[in-house]
Amino acid sequence: MSKIKVAAFSISLDGFGAGSHQSLKDPLGIRGEELHAWMFDKTTSDGVDNDIVKRSMENIGAWIMGRNMFGPVRGPWPDNEWKGWWGEQPPYHVPVFVLTHHARESVTMKGGTTFHFVTGGIEAALAEAKKVANGKDIRIGGGVSTIHQFLKAGYIDEIQLTFSPIFLGAGENLFSGIDLPALGFNQVEKINGENATHIILRK
Amino acid sequence: MSKIKVAAFSISLDGFGAGSHQSLKDPLGIRGEELHAWMFDKTTSDGVDNDIVKRSMENIGAWIMGRNMFGPVRGPWPDNEWKGWWGEQPPYHVPVFVLTHHARESVTMKGGTTFHFVTGGIEAALAEAKKVANGKDIRIGGGVSTIHQFLKAGYIDEIQLTFSPIFLGAGENLFSGIDLPALGFNQVEKINGENATHIILRK
Repeated sequence: MSKIKVAAFSISLDGFGAGSHQSLKDPLGIRGEELHAWMFDKTTSDGVDNDIVKRSMENIGAWIMGRNMFGPVRGPWPDNEWKGWWGEQPPYHVPVFVLTHHARESVTMKGGTTFHFVTGGIEAALAEAKKVANGKDIRIGGGVSTIHQFLKAGYIDEIQLTFSPIFLGAGENLFSGIDLPALGFNQVEKINGENATHIILRK
Repeated sequence: MSKIKVAAFSISLDGFGAGSHQSLKDPLGIRGEELHAWMFDKTTSDGVDNDIVKRSMENIGAWIMGRNMFGPVRGPWPDNEWKGWWGEQPPYHVPVFVLTHHARESVTMKGGTTFHFVTGGIEAALAEAKKVANGKDIRIGGGVSTIHQFLKAGYIDEIQLTFSPIFLGAGENLFSGIDLPALGFNQVEKINGENATHIILRK
């Protein structure tokens, strides 16, 4: 059955999914890049951590992400120049729905990724994503505020968090105001990777 | 050199050191006991987790703990009946300083533990603890609010947290209002145990 899920979402041990002061220079805020260091260790390319990344990309029919995950531009789009952080061929290869308050034409990238801009909120994005996902899973990309919206609305079926062994101390905290057991997540699975700890929560 | 430290302090993956609604029935609040399940797995009595417990008890000259860690009694002590959660022979075997607003005579238990009640706040407790610690380390036991006070005052040299693979969702959050890197904790070591993940933070 098609699931709506969060996968390989990196957080610090104190719960931060991004550091403070996001900017063009620091897309994930101060020290935020350290959250993803576990993904880029070439000495463990056949290991547990890498397997988590691979699994997180399987059977995904569409993505939904917040505007801050798409880029640093705020307010009305000044032009259509900004096309994400990921270059000409983003790693999604499926339709990606970007939540924004400001309308913009869709952008087709190489490799199957199309960015669609949704101004109708999370329900509208979910409806659009379901139409094109072709029965596959829908992945909620982030950041923290997008995940909070989907969690509170009860749409998420499964969450796979990755705890990086760092403390950020400040930024966007995934657990702030979120009671996961009260939201129905009562199964917890733990997988120790080479550089991070992977946790799966299911209802 | 004598250190002031937190050791084997159990928290949930979402940062809670105790559940909500502490009571005589639930000393650590709702589901709080699950935080310590990793300590009581008899199938791993020679393992990593057990070694962490053993190390946490080594070279301790005195303990300081909050009143809620000592017991469920609130307000003035009605009598001297309550002598802690741990029976006649508590597992401390050294002087234990209990922070309270209400004076009470010291209580000597079997096995070397004496409970002293300190009404002068954390500085007074620390001064008393140093007098009797005989150059050994002073362990700050908990709960969360006691650790917060010592952290914010800058007294703690080392913190060893144990993450239990559960989510509590509510209760006393160790990271709430605490920026560990800003408090000078910049080294992080991770040790994977059989049932929990142990993190050491050093300045």
